[in-house]
Amino acid sequence: MTPEERVAELVGRVGAVDDAAAEAARRRCERLATPPGALGALETVGVRLAALAGACPPPVPASPAVLVAAGDHGVHAQGVTAWPQEVTAAMVSAFCAGKAGVNAVAATVGARVRVLDVGVAGDLTGLDGHALLRRRPVRAGTSDCATGEAMSRAEACAALLAGADTTGELLGEGVDLLVPGDMGIANTTSAACLVAALTGRAPAAVTGPGAGADDETVARKTDVVAAALDRHGLWSGADALSVLGAVGGFEHAALAGATLAAAAAGVPVVLDGVSTVAAALAAVALCPEAEGCLVGGHLSPEPGAGLGLSHLGLEPLVDAGLCLGEGTGGLLAVPAVSAAARALGEVATLDELTTTPGPSSR
Amino acid sequence: MTPEERVAELVGRVGAVDDAAAEAARRRCERLATPPGALGALETVGVRLAALAGACPPPVPASPAVLVAAGDHGVHAQGVTAWPQEVTAAMVSAFCAGKAGVNAVAATVGARVRVLDVGVAGDLTGLDGHALLRRRPVRAGTSDCATGEAMSRAEACAALLAGADTTGELLGEGVDLLVPGDMGIANTTSAACLVAALTGRAPAAVTGPGAGADDETVARKTDVVAAALDRHGLWSGADALSVLGAVGGFEHAALAGATLAAAAAGVPVVLDGVSTVAAALAAVALCPEAEGCLVGGHLSPEPGAGLGLSHLGLEPLVDAGLCLGEGTGGLLAVPAVSAAARALGEVATLDELTTTPGPSSR
Repeated sequence: MTPEERVAELVGRVGAVDDAAAEAARRRCERLATPPGALGALETVGVRLAALAGACPPPVPASPAVLVAAGDHGVHAQGVTAWPQEVTAAMVSAFCAGKAGVNAVAATVGARVRVLDVGVAGDLTGLDGHALLRRRPVRAGTSDCATGEAMSRAEACAALLAGADTTGELLGEGVDLLVPGDMGIANTTSAACLVAALTGRAPAAVTGPGAGADDETVARKTDVVAAALDRHGLWSGADALSVLGAVGGFEHAALAGATLAAAAAGVPVVLDGVSTVAAALAAVALCPEAEGCLVGGHLSPEPGAGLGLSHLGLEPLVDAGLCLGEGTGGLLAVPAVSAAARALGEVATLDELTTTPGPSSR
Repeated sequence: MTPEERVAELVGRVGAVDDAAAEAARRRCERLATPPGALGALETVGVRLAALAGACPPPVPASPAVLVAAGDHGVHAQGVTAWPQEVTAAMVSAFCAGKAGVNAVAATVGARVRVLDVGVAGDLTGLDGHALLRRRPVRAGTSDCATGEAMSRAEACAALLAGADTTGELLGEGVDLLVPGDMGIANTTSAACLVAALTGRAPAAVTGPGAGADDETVARKTDVVAAALDRHGLWSGADALSVLGAVGGFEHAALAGATLAAAAAGVPVVLDGVSTVAAALAAVALCPEAEGCLVGGHLSPEPGAGLGLSHLGLEPLVDAGLCLGEGTGGLLAVPAVSAAARALGEVATLDELTTTPGPSSR
């Protein structure tokens, strides 16, 4: 099979969610010994988990993982960030050494960490064989989308499949909840391009400071996003692989593949910031059924994240103001996702608590 | 000692936080190998934890507990809720049976559950000696604050000390993070009275639907709150014990005591919804130094919760729309609090990651 045929095969493995299980979960929520709607987003998420698993109550996620896909970006040359490109490789080293934000948050929620080099420009050969790292570099960074295509269609497929395969390995280890994470200096520029192209929102609405850019840099970044969409003719619903190839990052394509692989296995994907939202938008554009696996994790302050989540019909669970990427915000929401499943299975219904009267208006 | 002298002794045991440790934590945040501010609220919370512990990095909370204080309310007679008073006792039974929302969320985050009967009207003798339950009932429900004082000053002290003592027992078991929780049909009316009296906000601004009240009931509830504040002359900064006695619930007083006991031990208190916020406002009114132990957990949709948190200078970590009480929302924030401590201790600083260059503007 060609890479593109393999992507099509992956898309074909994603099934529809189970509406009957969703309906059973909704009915169970109504009968719980809690005031109507009192579990808030835990009810919404519980219904999604039931639909995805095809069972009410849904299984309680017990083995979460964060997959941090890392890549570099040709658009860095446009001055869209003050951080040098070398930081991408340095942070991959920090992930492997257990000394980054993602490691601290993953340890707190009991998630395993897996890092995927899908196109880091720096030298990572010193990390070859590291237990946390998988190396499937497509190329040492994308090309500059301001002057040409970021990657070819075949490269986009290769990156997507690298993410899907690494996710498949995690699923084989028993992982039952996936948090996608990202690392890539300049990648919020690519993410803004993807969100704008895939939601139809204006570049100014989806472009933000990323890793602390000042106002002047954000203005330049917005111009770069608008020019890239213009150059590649992405204003009117190009197909998702073309969009990924024209303006995406290798890590965005990899995380789209990770999302599809999780969706195909009925495993929930808890979204983090703007890069994971961009990847989810691409996954859903490739395969509308993939929407059923998505859970809104964290509300990133990066504007494209919130708008992208809205486009996907998702409400984030945690609003802690993180703008670090790496999956950190999504990881913070993992306990709420587990609690949503547990509430459907373990909280008594009014009829089970026979001594509990309902409200007098019933 | 009289109960009031014991309360004064407890207040005297709450020390000031350690400004030097807070400053060390702020400086460490600035040097972390993350973009400035990228850890969002985890930085703010980490600084608070360091100040409270007097150490940077602060210890990572490893043994959280939720203390659910339960009581009934004479103001129930004013038609402020559609739920019958019997539900309070029934829910205490559900907590002990492990079948309520709090049990599901506590299990998810590894928190132990302790329930305190501090004035439930229903019969709980069948639960005497239950491992999860402590019984220190002051009276079988408060009096109606619309027609008289909810409790005497001595009763308010007794309830406060019951909460402090139960917290002391938890601390003796090694608990190092406390989530206060509440159960009491009609208690959001008392909570609204407390928030209005202790923040100076208008009754209409702090009164909401609680456990699903309709618009007509919310309007009546708002009138009851306004009339109670008028009747008891609470518009202009009465002392906190008088406010608790006039319009509070036994569980609010107990949770104020729990907050003071945790503060005295340097243990963080992660707030849940409006009843725990009301209790925290009372604790801080009694003892301004107690503010240092507080962490905003969850943003309850109940309006008094958000306004009370703002008054305390706190931002909630989780926004999942829960309005259940029981400590459920606060529990969902526990992993973020632990992650905040862990990030300060485990994430590398830029100078440790010698291969990581900073942004070019530095």
